[in-house]
Amino acid sequence: MIKRALPVTREADFAAWYQSVITEADLAEESGVRGCMVIRPWGYGIWERIQRLLDDRIKATGHENCYFPLFIPLSYFEKEAEHVEGFAKEMAVVTHHRLVSDGKGGLTPDPEAKLEEPLVVRPTSETVIGTAFARWIQSWRDLPVLINQWANVVRWEMRTRMFLRTSEFLWQEGHTAHATPQEARDETLKMLEVYREFAETCLALPVVAGEKPENERFPGAVATYSIEAMMQDGKALQAGTSHFLGTNFAHAQNIRFQNAEGQFEHANTTSWGVSTRMIGGVIMVHGDDAGLRVPPRIAPWQIVIVPMLRDAPEDAALVDYCKALQAELAKGVALGEPIRALLDLKPAKAATKRWGWVKKGAPIVIEVGGRDMAGGNVSVIRRDRLYREDGKLDSQVVAKDALVADAAAMLEGIQAGLFEEAHDRLRASIAPVEDWAGVEAMFADATKPGWADVRWSKPTGAALDAVVARLKALKLTIRNAPMGQTGADSGPCIFTGEPAVERVLIGRAY
Amino acid sequence: MIKRALPVTREADFAAWYQSVITEADLAEESGVRGCMVIRPWGYGIWERIQRLLDDRIKATGHENCYFPLFIPLSYFEKEAEHVEGFAKEMAVVTHHRLVSDGKGGLTPDPEAKLEEPLVVRPTSETVIGTAFARWIQSWRDLPVLINQWANVVRWEMRTRMFLRTSEFLWQEGHTAHATPQEARDETLKMLEVYREFAETCLALPVVAGEKPENERFPGAVATYSIEAMMQDGKALQAGTSHFLGTNFAHAQNIRFQNAEGQFEHANTTSWGVSTRMIGGVIMVHGDDAGLRVPPRIAPWQIVIVPMLRDAPEDAALVDYCKALQAELAKGVALGEPIRALLDLKPAKAATKRWGWVKKGAPIVIEVGGRDMAGGNVSVIRRDRLYREDGKLDSQVVAKDALVADAAAMLEGIQAGLFEEAHDRLRASIAPVEDWAGVEAMFADATKPGWADVRWSKPTGAALDAVVARLKALKLTIRNAPMGQTGADSGPCIFTGEPAVERVLIGRAY
Repeated sequence: MIKRALPVTREADFAAWYQSVITEADLAEESGVRGCMVIRPWGYGIWERIQRLLDDRIKATGHENCYFPLFIPLSYFEKEAEHVEGFAKEMAVVTHHRLVSDGKGGLTPDPEAKLEEPLVVRPTSETVIGTAFARWIQSWRDLPVLINQWANVVRWEMRTRMFLRTSEFLWQEGHTAHATPQEARDETLKMLEVYREFAETCLALPVVAGEKPENERFPGAVATYSIEAMMQDGKALQAGTSHFLGTNFAHAQNIRFQNAEGQFEHANTTSWGVSTRMIGGVIMVHGDDAGLRVPPRIAPWQIVIVPMLRDAPEDAALVDYCKALQAELAKGVALGEPIRALLDLKPAKAATKRWGWVKKGAPIVIEVGGRDMAGGNVSVIRRDRLYREDGKLDSQVVAKDALVADAAAMLEGIQAGLFEEAHDRLRASIAPVEDWAGVEAMFADATKPGWADVRWSKPTGAALDAVVARLKALKLTIRNAPMGQTGADSGPCIFTGEPAVERVLIGRAY
Repeated sequence: MIKRALPVTREADFAAWYQSVITEADLAEESGVRGCMVIRPWGYGIWERIQRLLDDRIKATGHENCYFPLFIPLSYFEKEAEHVEGFAKEMAVVTHHRLVSDGKGGLTPDPEAKLEEPLVVRPTSETVIGTAFARWIQSWRDLPVLINQWANVVRWEMRTRMFLRTSEFLWQEGHTAHATPQEARDETLKMLEVYREFAETCLALPVVAGEKPENERFPGAVATYSIEAMMQDGKALQAGTSHFLGTNFAHAQNIRFQNAEGQFEHANTTSWGVSTRMIGGVIMVHGDDAGLRVPPRIAPWQIVIVPMLRDAPEDAALVDYCKALQAELAKGVALGEPIRALLDLKPAKAATKRWGWVKKGAPIVIEVGGRDMAGGNVSVIRRDRLYREDGKLDSQVVAKDALVADAAAMLEGIQAGLFEEAHDRLRASIAPVEDWAGVEAMFADATKPGWADVRWSKPTGAALDAVVARLKALKLTIRNAPMGQTGADSGPCIFTGEPAVERVLIGRAY
């Protein structure tokens, strides 16, 4: 008997539930601008935590942040045929630089201010950053170049869904150039591993890291790797990608260097990115029927204190008691950082605030009433153990000092528990399947099918197209070929019957 | 006798010197995209420090960060006439959402993919944020709303100059809504004060905070305040603005609330922003003929260690010595934060690296050679005392332990010294002037004229237009009316002869 649940449960309608978490947890909202959302403070606070923690890792691996222009001249895209083919259909194009009156009380782009060359709003920055690399790189001594930028990008999506697929989104994009293909491949895999570790440690999101099949490669890449997360409805979310670009972009943009022997070579480049899409993954992995549950490492506030004020003279003492508690908690260190504790003094009823923070997914909510204060106690709600077996809210009265002493361990326990729960689900949702009939059977039942783990012969060209078409008929895609395969497990490809070269994961995806 | 100076001195050509600092210090470069620059790692690192320090202050005053769309429908702008009038001439307009082949091997905006309503790339976000405020605010209980965003904005500038005026720039824009005009005015001035304190404390940039005259107000504002900094060529740089918008935007966007008595009222709103322009101010206030000098609080690296490597077996011991030094320095705390020390192991000659860091303006550069190491010493260069009286580089050999013990005090001394030097210059460059003839005389000599401090009667309408025209003929503008005037100092307005109501600063500006 769960009270105060969201308007819709995961079981009843997962898509509607996802939307209701975003609304009820004040994460984001429609903006009135087609396909673009407003990220509200709680949602943006989670993104700021993601930025801080991932940025530390990007810098620790030797990368420096830069900033490149939002606008990219059309001609930059024309140089790499596959790349432009991949993005041309979804590009926002700036054609004018001034507005004038339309004579009817409104405004219109000024025909006198038409740009000679249209500008594309960046969908990704390989072309403009590659142009800079060509200026920066002359000699082997200039390599490697290891840079990253935090930016907004625009891909004009016809069907949008908040956080998962929006016309404008926020991301980081790393771009590097190296002297040899091996170094660039190593970089590509190093950043894939940074993403895996970050997703698992910080977002409590267990993922499978692996290589995407040829048909799912980034336009212009030689190889694309991804981390794939398992949502509660059994679908996959590609949560980050890392690309080995070989010399494709270096040829298109003339990124050359003189090697130690004085000969000119093209550089090998990489790119890699994660975006606000990750927040969609956090919602669909950790949310429950009461709202979001934010892993403590990325929670803007890890502990929220709600005093039960009564508009009475005793309120002042209660606020003082809560302020002292906040100060004591903030002195603690959990998960390697000072504890982030908020005292919520907004003018609203305590019960409204409590449920607001439960829906937002603050890891720990502490309520303090007059009786708690008199006994030197507080009432503690752990977001990961919201209800008792009997369906009642699990609010526990504990001594204030004990809570302060336990807070760090509690937060660490919540972080670990969320990961474990998701990890168990991931493992339980991947099934080895021996043949195509098994795949058909597995996905005939549409309820949380998970992923099939199958052998394949890694076909290319027309043979791959045929595989993709068969999968597409069942709304399936190959997610990736997990890393670390030993090749010991041999057998026939489920598609071609030829000897398999590796195992791949197949599933439905966002 | 200063060696290794930039290609041009401040005295010879201030504008060319400014440009050479940006190039030689690797701060930024032209991107190939008209009016847009690439911000390189050292320049972006300074911006990241600015963001971190200012963001802390914005949050400490109760504001939360959000993110709003890059694109704003044309119709949003049409609602506030003054506002659109102010920005229409410099707006980048998106008209298409897809590219197609032009049949000649190139690409062109797809005529089939023309947007029904053109989208403007935000020049500032009052209109789109106001639309959100109208959704969020229903009751007096919802007020105040205090938000901020870090974002890129675009104003199509015909004449651009790196950091000072670029078509795209990075900034923060705060937007707030309040129940009463007094609260909104208080907020406007509170954030002006946050900017003043931030500029002086963190950027070591002494500024004059004051109210802009009516003709310099933000389009749609009731009152605009600024902080104005004095560049070394005597010109002013408006380094931040804070606007009281009254109910102008609330009327245009229907931001209404029910007050405690149940009546509907329009909210009073504010907005305030600073941008990457501040970096231009840091260059023009603290730079010298050897390059940039970065105040320690905003230096990405405060201390850079350059080992004098010789490609010899002894190098390993020298690197270990330097690593130990770096670790010891990093344990220290200066200006309230852990010291940021870099060990520069890039493959380049030590002298090249030394001059590179001098040009970049790292506050302290430490060179370590074999002889230094043998004696337990290091050679220290303070960027604020680069040369001795005799013109030789002031590199001082000190015991390593003494350097570690003194580093924090040294950094604090550099921060304070840069501020003092700039503050002395600011004070020396403002001259009280009693009449218009005095203004003409002061600005007849074009060399570093500084600002005139004059009485005026604060005329409006046509009388103000006449004042503006007289000033414009001398390339002058009213910078602001400094805060905290007591009104005790009376006399005639230098323009109208009428009794003055306040003093204003007049000068040339960027």
